Amino acid sequence: MFNEDGTYNSETYEYCAGYQYRDSTIIGFSHTNLSGTGHSDLGDFLVMPTTGKLVLDPLKTIEDNKGFYSTFSHDKESASPGYYKVKLDSYDVTAELTSSERVGFHQYTFPKSNEAHIILDMVYNVYHHDNKNVWTFIRVENDSLVTGYRQTKGWARTKKVFFAMKFSKPFKTYGHKKYNKETYDGFYRRFNQSENFPEIAGKDIRMYFNFDTDENEKIKIKFALSSVSTSGALKNLEAEIPHWDFDKTKNETKDKWNKELAKIEVKTLTENDKKTFYSALYHTMLSPVLYEDVDGQYRGLDQNIHTSEGFTNYTVFSLWDTYRALHPLFNIIQPERNNDMIKSMLAHHDESVHNMLPIWSHYANENWCMIGYHATSVIADAMAKNIGNFDYKRALQASENTANVRYFDGLGDYIDYNYVPDDKSHSSVSKTLELAYNDWCIAQIAKKVGNAEKEQEFLNRSEYYNNVYDEKSGYMRPKLADGTFRKNFDPLDTHGQGFIEGNAWNYGLYVPHQLDKMIQMMGGKERFIQHLDSLFTMELDDKFIEKHEDITRDGIMGNYVQGNEPGHHIPYLYNWTGKPCKTQERVRLIMDTMYGSTVDGLCGNDDAGQMSAWYVFSSLGFYPVTPGLSEYALGSPLVEEAIIHLENGKTLTITAKNQSKENVYVQRVLLNGKIIEGSTLQHQDIMNGGEIVFEMTNKPKM
Amino acid sequence: MFNEDGTYNSETYEYCAGYQYRDSTIIGFSHTNLSGTGHSDLGDFLVMPTTGKLVLDPLKTIEDNKGFYSTFSHDKESASPGYYKVKLDSYDVTAELTSSERVGFHQYTFPKSNEAHIILDMVYNVYHHDNKNVWTFIRVENDSLVTGYRQTKGWARTKKVFFAMKFSKPFKTYGHKKYNKETYDGFYRRFNQSENFPEIAGKDIRMYFNFDTDENEKIKIKFALSSVSTSGALKNLEAEIPHWDFDKTKNETKDKWNKELAKIEVKTLTENDKKTFYSALYHTMLSPVLYEDVDGQYRGLDQNIHTSEGFTNYTVFSLWDTYRALHPLFNIIQPERNNDMIKSMLAHHDESVHNMLPIWSHYANENWCMIGYHATSVIADAMAKNIGNFDYKRALQASENTANVRYFDGLGDYIDYNYVPDDKSHSSVSKTLELAYNDWCIAQIAKKVGNAEKEQEFLNRSEYYNNVYDEKSGYMRPKLADGTFRKNFDPLDTHGQGFIEGNAWNYGLYVPHQLDKMIQMMGGKERFIQHLDSLFTMELDDKFIEKHEDITRDGIMGNYVQGNEPGHHIPYLYNWTGKPCKTQERVRLIMDTMYGSTVDGLCGNDDAGQMSAWYVFSSLGFYPVTPGLSEYALGSPLVEEAIIHLENGKTLTITAKNQSKENVYVQRVLLNGKIIEGSTLQHQDIMNGGEIVFEMTNKPKM
Repeated sequence: MFNEDGTYNSETYEYCAGYQYRDSTIIGFSHTNLSGTGHSDLGDFLVMPTTGKLVLDPLKTIEDNKGFYSTFSHDKESASPGYYKVKLDSYDVTAELTSSERVGFHQYTFPKSNEAHIILDMVYNVYHHDNKNVWTFIRVENDSLVTGYRQTKGWARTKKVFFAMKFSKPFKTYGHKKYNKETYDGFYRRFNQSENFPEIAGKDIRMYFNFDTDENEKIKIKFALSSVSTSGALKNLEAEIPHWDFDKTKNETKDKWNKELAKIEVKTLTENDKKTFYSALYHTMLSPVLYEDVDGQYRGLDQNIHTSEGFTNYTVFSLWDTYRALHPLFNIIQPERNNDMIKSMLAHHDESVHNMLPIWSHYANENWCMIGYHATSVIADAMAKNIGNFDYKRALQASENTANVRYFDGLGDYIDYNYVPDDKSHSSVSKTLELAYNDWCIAQIAKKVGNAEKEQEFLNRSEYYNNVYDEKSGYMRPKLADGTFRKNFDPLDTHGQGFIEGNAWNYGLYVPHQLDKMIQMMGGKERFIQHLDSLFTMELDDKFIEKHEDITRDGIMGNYVQGNEPGHHIPYLYNWTGKPCKTQERVRLIMDTMYGSTVDGLCGNDDAGQMSAWYVFSSLGFYPVTPGLSEYALGSPLVEEAIIHLENGKTLTITAKNQSKENVYVQRVLLNGKIIEGSTLQHQDIMNGGEIVFEMTNKPKM
Repeated sequence: MFNEDGTYNSETYEYCAGYQYRDSTIIGFSHTNLSGTGHSDLGDFLVMPTTGKLVLDPLKTIEDNKGFYSTFSHDKESASPGYYKVKLDSYDVTAELTSSERVGFHQYTFPKSNEAHIILDMVYNVYHHDNKNVWTFIRVENDSLVTGYRQTKGWARTKKVFFAMKFSKPFKTYGHKKYNKETYDGFYRRFNQSENFPEIAGKDIRMYFNFDTDENEKIKIKFALSSVSTSGALKNLEAEIPHWDFDKTKNETKDKWNKELAKIEVKTLTENDKKTFYSALYHTMLSPVLYEDVDGQYRGLDQNIHTSEGFTNYTVFSLWDTYRALHPLFNIIQPERNNDMIKSMLAHHDESVHNMLPIWSHYANENWCMIGYHATSVIADAMAKNIGNFDYKRALQASENTANVRYFDGLGDYIDYNYVPDDKSHSSVSKTLELAYNDWCIAQIAKKVGNAEKEQEFLNRSEYYNNVYDEKSGYMRPKLADGTFRKNFDPLDTHGQGFIEGNAWNYGLYVPHQLDKMIQMMGGKERFIQHLDSLFTMELDDKFIEKHEDITRDGIMGNYVQGNEPGHHIPYLYNWTGKPCKTQERVRLIMDTMYGSTVDGLCGNDDAGQMSAWYVFSSLGFYPVTPGLSEYALGSPLVEEAIIHLENGKTLTITAKNQSKENVYVQRVLLNGKIIEGSTLQHQDIMNGGEIVFEMTNKPKM
């Protein structure tokens, strides 16, 4: 993803989650992290155990000595859902980490030492390109409990995270160092604040806690988070992990993960495929994240404290990515959670001074990343599939409000011109296409509510994609405010051509709500097949390919990009041309070549689970090309068998008969023994349970 | 008052309250201010009406043009309790201000203009020596409501004030400017944030709101505060001033003030004396200040939100000043409020990570200003006088906890050495004397609770003042850790001689709890009379007198200092020498020469009401020399008559028979017709109501 000003900062992604497999050093374990999002942030409260002479700088000291980082090797490292273990070689300390919903649980096994330390680094931030710290407040409540908060101004502009940190063993001494150069410290100067002084505040602070340890002595830390207050964090700590049994929490967490992951049981041709599938499924559950205390209190977008009445509040909605397949996947395997997420989005709207649904909801902030208002898609999709019990009228009103905030990112112009003029707004075509789709979603919501007037109003707006189609070139093309298409236009270039993170060749196919019309407009099915074939097979000049973490070279097939989102529906579009076999071929090829079970298993960042959700759907043999419709495009399953345990108690079994690496084509699909005509699967057929059989073959049927 | 490092910063006081009478310009009206405290802070949310071309800089623009300040003159200015009015000549705007408890009410009468502005300056701080701003967050909720908060790091280290600002008329446009140079603004950069964008955050921000106004059109603003949240501020706004009737609020506020001020009705010899008296009485009610929302929620010292159960929460406890006479005065005229204040102090203790009662409680912060733990005096005094219904045992525990925080300002050494060694801690004698008095207060608390063991423990500590008395020199004198008195010692010097804001001559007389013993120790009554006489009459070399706002030259009489607190009890000490007539003479002289009804009516800053409380007591003819004892030293009343309306429904009438400027001596004092023997008045005799008659004469009796 690009910066707003069009530049690309290569640091943005690399340490998005705070970890790169190629690293040989660890500087600690922080408590808030994103998984493969389009920008980097968080990393609150870095904890690091060390031994020997106390060092408070992570990389190197001012005397140029080694910082508090440790070397490590992957052969003394293991990771599984809810559990991580690594040997910190520099200190002969074994670190183990697990967690409950709101509490991180650390277990450090020390050598014998009278200089054992736990460092709490509150200077550290993920993506530290700018000093994000605004304020830090810490209280040492007693000899084994520390509370506090940090406010930062990163991607989330006004972000506060509160904590309570409880040690299993009293520290013998403690202290801190301030790294900011503020001169004024008022009458606090009368104290020696740096050692054993229990109340600390400032901008950039690192704390240390000193211990004597016996050989193999374990020091454990429970580290609770809250968006509300330190008393909220303490409540969370006491409620979730009232004991010191690390293995108990580790096992409970493992059980929770297994319960969720076992919702889809798959048989695959290879062990690798199984690993890839469950890695993907795991990735789909890393965000959105829970954002409320055990008592339901949470910090709202207005920075006031709210209580979630009748729902569980979530944040981290990377909606430009996740509306495509992640939320639709939730509608199958976690509909209750998706219902909570939609209610969280409605609460976000109510707390928004703009009266807007979230674009990218981020720790009680709107970070405005990417384009469109795709919360409307998530809502429309849930309504189409009868998911949840949220208030439909309220959802329509929130969607309508969102769609009329004129100062939002070209929206006023879109309303006035019926397209986004390229001379008024960057990424004008992408915006026009996505807003048109979003408006179709609002029309679907209005229809469900029974508001025919609003339905028609937004159906009209949903046709605006027509206004950026240039019949002459055959592409979606940037149009100026004067109604003419922009002259300087390269449909292959991904920069400054009216598209964001894509070009006219691929992003230009983004009319998910009127695919037949789009294909017709673009010259009919035959021409469209040619376009798709060329897209997948053309030799793309390297100059059009940027090397960055968002999309790897392996994530590009011809001019088709799997490593980023705008084209995720494209492999399925052959279904609309009468050539579903080409969809079947492409999706199997993508799954085979662009996903894997090793550390480079994804061909781009995961974008908060969307990359993985694509894989989970495609593995099962279908994909939600048009969220907001209660149907799926059929593809070609990768699994031999999948059993989906639905929350309604029913079970759907998907079987791929004659499954093999070569048999990528589907001869017939039978739903409970009855042949499915066409290439569409209904959501209700999934939710009713039963059996879907794909008859696989190595010969394309059509 | 001095900075902690001993230096003195002349800017500290001048604009403590944000106003100097000699000024000819106004830059606006802010919503939090202190009244004559020993350091400066606050000044949140400066509001200023202007007309003409918008100017957002207060003093001058970068083009060197005039800033948004206005000239004004005192003849177009008036002020009375709860109401202020001034003509802002630069803009032809009349500003009127009133308030309820938590809501400021502005009324600006504009000329006809299509360029009328209201500026909300959130850069401004009182005592802006260091940029105090940490973070500012603002939401324009609609065309006439703005909410937000500011966090600052001044005297209060982690201070947050939230607001809700409601306009009587919708603004036509609005905008802001950021004055900090932060580069990162995330994806907010896609908006034109500077104009009509409703969500703003950053460090240093000034906002403006534009209006068209007719001739004499009034624009009103209700500006509500909260320590909790913007929703708290909104609640306060709606609860306290639900209407737009400025005069109604003004009159209600006037009535509230009159109700409080009428608790003491005085007849005086001159109109000036009456003005001075009521100005003083008014000053005693400016702080401590209410610190909770209408629903009882407030921000605690731990930065968590608490609810005041069974009390009203207060802040701004400048206790080194106010325990002397201000809280004792409350025990007579506002005992319920003092009860709330003590409960606030106990809550402060419970929220303190140090387990300490407040030293100087300041907007959910402890600012640690000055020495001793005088909350114990306020508690002991209330208990001695049977004020309030707070928990005595809890009060003892809190006092005891406070008295054992070893890292607090020499306290560990005081406990170990039985005095504060001068080579270990600055102001060692002052600290020893005050801690000894405070420990006597704790002994009184323990006695009331019936804890004989604690009573004895703290009675023992209360004798520690003996350990810094140097028999040879006859002065309290700095003693070193090795037990010897410091060699380099000048009893007149106020700097580095073991005293803070005083010298051995005056501050050395600070043993309020054992005055007879002290006088005995210092050579007996005759010698002590000589000492006092010299103190009041000696020619003090100018080198010992610093010119600053804390004490004016007029606030010094010989070597006696009325302009600061440590000697406030001294004029009354003649009573302990058998020469009460000298007390009578001195206090009348001080009242006559050091207090007045003009703008320079105080001979030093008011120290949160203590300077004025001394005057109120002394005017009535008695003074609480030893808070913690339920008795007062008799002086010489200034009034001809005073009627005190007590909260218990009773009335006390004080009459000065034959009162005149010359008749400063008291012949006899009769309580309900019965002569009072000695120079002491019992608190119970006041609370019982009735009549006290002072028979005045121009001849000293003894």
